[in-house]
Amino acid sequence: MNIEIVTIGDELLLGFTIDTNAAHLARELAALGVRIVRRATCGDDASSIQAAVREALQRTGAVITTGGLGPTADDMTKPAIAEIFGQAMVLDPEILTNLQERWRKRFNHELPVSNHQQAMVPLGATILKNNHGSAPGIWLEDADGKWVAMLPGVPREMRGMVADTILPRLRDRLPSDGPVIRSRTLRTANIAESALADRLGELARGVNGLSLAYLPGNDGVDLRLTSWDRDARGTSSALEAAAALVRAKVEPFIYGEGDDDLAAIMLAECAARGATVAVAESCTGGMLGMRLTAVPGSSRTVLGGTIAYANEVKIRELGVPAELIADQGTVSEAVARAMASGVRQRFGSTIGFGITGIAGPDGGTPEKPVGTVWVAVDLAGEVHAVRAILPGDRFEIRWRAAQLALDRLRKTFARDTDATGWTSRS
Amino acid sequence: MNIEIVTIGDELLLGFTIDTNAAHLARELAALGVRIVRRATCGDDASSIQAAVREALQRTGAVITTGGLGPTADDMTKPAIAEIFGQAMVLDPEILTNLQERWRKRFNHELPVSNHQQAMVPLGATILKNNHGSAPGIWLEDADGKWVAMLPGVPREMRGMVADTILPRLRDRLPSDGPVIRSRTLRTANIAESALADRLGELARGVNGLSLAYLPGNDGVDLRLTSWDRDARGTSSALEAAAALVRAKVEPFIYGEGDDDLAAIMLAECAARGATVAVAESCTGGMLGMRLTAVPGSSRTVLGGTIAYANEVKIRELGVPAELIADQGTVSEAVARAMASGVRQRFGSTIGFGITGIAGPDGGTPEKPVGTVWVAVDLAGEVHAVRAILPGDRFEIRWRAAQLALDRLRKTFARDTDATGWTSRS
Repeated sequence: MNIEIVTIGDELLLGFTIDTNAAHLARELAALGVRIVRRATCGDDASSIQAAVREALQRTGAVITTGGLGPTADDMTKPAIAEIFGQAMVLDPEILTNLQERWRKRFNHELPVSNHQQAMVPLGATILKNNHGSAPGIWLEDADGKWVAMLPGVPREMRGMVADTILPRLRDRLPSDGPVIRSRTLRTANIAESALADRLGELARGVNGLSLAYLPGNDGVDLRLTSWDRDARGTSSALEAAAALVRAKVEPFIYGEGDDDLAAIMLAECAARGATVAVAESCTGGMLGMRLTAVPGSSRTVLGGTIAYANEVKIRELGVPAELIADQGTVSEAVARAMASGVRQRFGSTIGFGITGIAGPDGGTPEKPVGTVWVAVDLAGEVHAVRAILPGDRFEIRWRAAQLALDRLRKTFARDTDATGWTSRS
Repeated sequence: MNIEIVTIGDELLLGFTIDTNAAHLARELAALGVRIVRRATCGDDASSIQAAVREALQRTGAVITTGGLGPTADDMTKPAIAEIFGQAMVLDPEILTNLQERWRKRFNHELPVSNHQQAMVPLGATILKNNHGSAPGIWLEDADGKWVAMLPGVPREMRGMVADTILPRLRDRLPSDGPVIRSRTLRTANIAESALADRLGELARGVNGLSLAYLPGNDGVDLRLTSWDRDARGTSSALEAAAALVRAKVEPFIYGEGDDDLAAIMLAECAARGATVAVAESCTGGMLGMRLTAVPGSSRTVLGGTIAYANEVKIRELGVPAELIADQGTVSEAVARAMASGVRQRFGSTIGFGITGIAGPDGGTPEKPVGTVWVAVDLAGEVHAVRAILPGDRFEIRWRAAQLALDRLRKTFARDTDATGWTSRS
């Protein structure tokens, strides 16, 4: 099945809002074997919406739109598309009642008259229930089976409705053994794209007919294998085999798959070992703590930490000797180690992280350019430190520094096969 | 001038990468008065690229593409578009030499043979210099003045090249007094969209022919005024007047304009007052520290802080009385105040922040549902606390909590007209 996506919104076309909806739709639909053959963005006005949707209907006959279902004057999606299908707009009393109840309950307020347009629907439309917001979606189909599904633009609502109302409908219309597009992603950290390609050798350009894409990012380089033409069962085994071949070549650098978050993986490993964590951060300013505590359930493992942005704080709170800073510099192996051990001892945790570096854009020198970072991990008294010169702007250097620290812990865990001794060492 | 944008990449169509390039291009071009009339995304293969670009050339005659200029087998942009213009591909010796020097200098390695394709260009093309990466851009134009500009897909490189090579070229081709599209954004915090609309009254739907868009986000609701049809000079004064009218209605809630970052604004206010800052964070886990230290130059103001994720840390490091936690609960006004004052006294800063809350998805109760957050700001001994029930998922609740804390400081500063007394009070 081929589908086209039209994302509606002046703010998208003007570039003030990033289009995340199209990407989400594409991922979800590809997994069903539904191919997005075209994706377009148009403005809020009725004529732009009609032009883009009419073309898509003529070309492909199956269209999903996002946006333009709100209560303001620039929400024209429903009337514009109703006109394409030659349908009038009518007031749906059930939707109106739901909206009124919602406003009374949430805002203790009567539904503003301007919001009544959210209860108007094209005649003959199927209502798509929105469990995540107020505006319902609309499915409109003609006698030839050409259809348009109109979804809200708010990302959280759109995603919920795709799962609740769109995927089930499309699944019903698909042959159960048709070709599907599926991908499998291996996530690597702290190795460059070209070094990965070198290690992969002849696998670098693709594996057994599956494509291999290199996706560099602040978390590291993701390797994505994609199968385009096999049916569901064939796809699974082809991806499995290809992933195994790739792993065999670059295993030490792989920390997870798909959407795996290295912080979540490290927290799980800590929890399995009964280990607790404290962080001491200079240049990252709290970013590592934020990464770790972003994971639900992290309170089992994360005690907290010290943001030691000023040197006096490193000295006073973490016990880093002033002479060490004067002698070796704030950004040095010795200071990183002292921070990691200092916070571990002070917080009484199993593991202490220390991060010190130059996030830029100022502060670099020829010996220590912008991006220079020392990261140390104290695991029950055993300290490992690593230095890197990280690329990018201030945000990217800080994010990559936190990722480097998490990866340093991962490597320490990977090397240590004795998982029993944490509580006895301190 | 009308332009179309085509972003190239399977990973975009599959939804694994968010398209930020199109948005950036649109913003930059709109400021010149260049109207993006269509935006599309297509896959990596030559035939998809050709179909999308051919249509755009026929419809509009001016196209910018991003992506597909790399060294791998799936980088087909140049040969595909060269074919549309009926041009052969030739090796550019200067580009080849530059690439070879780059590899020797950066990687101490010879240029891999596969990368030679980055030195191939369509015959007759104009090279667009890339100061931010290895692959140059390409400008190809036919005898009728129809053109395609091919830019790299890597966002940082693309943005640099737009500024360096595209905007100057387009400026030369535009009438100096033509219509421009310009926007002005007023940023508000901690007030709902509907409450803003209520206060704006008849301005809510637009001001003097300028459109008004409500853009809710985790930082708060942005109000965007856009002028579509005036020339450069008329636009500026119209936006100025409209912004003043809007400000008059909602001034207390506005913290900045455009891309203003509330953390940066607060840091500037602190620096102007000679004030220093320390943070005590529970549910935000370091996110407020990260927001503040994300700003270059923050070391002038930010001493650091304590991530007090576990209650024992609040007690030991911040001096929060254990009985207070037992009595009122971790998420309470008293604990937020004790955290703010505790970190201020311990770090010797002018200002202390305390944040405690329930970020979810678990941990909520009927009395304190998920999203309940208490934020306190201790400004030289004067403490203000505020409670909110913040919407969204874990990330959104934490981000909004940090924003609430920054806004609480903003309101404290706004009320206090005596900016002289900080160093004397402590």
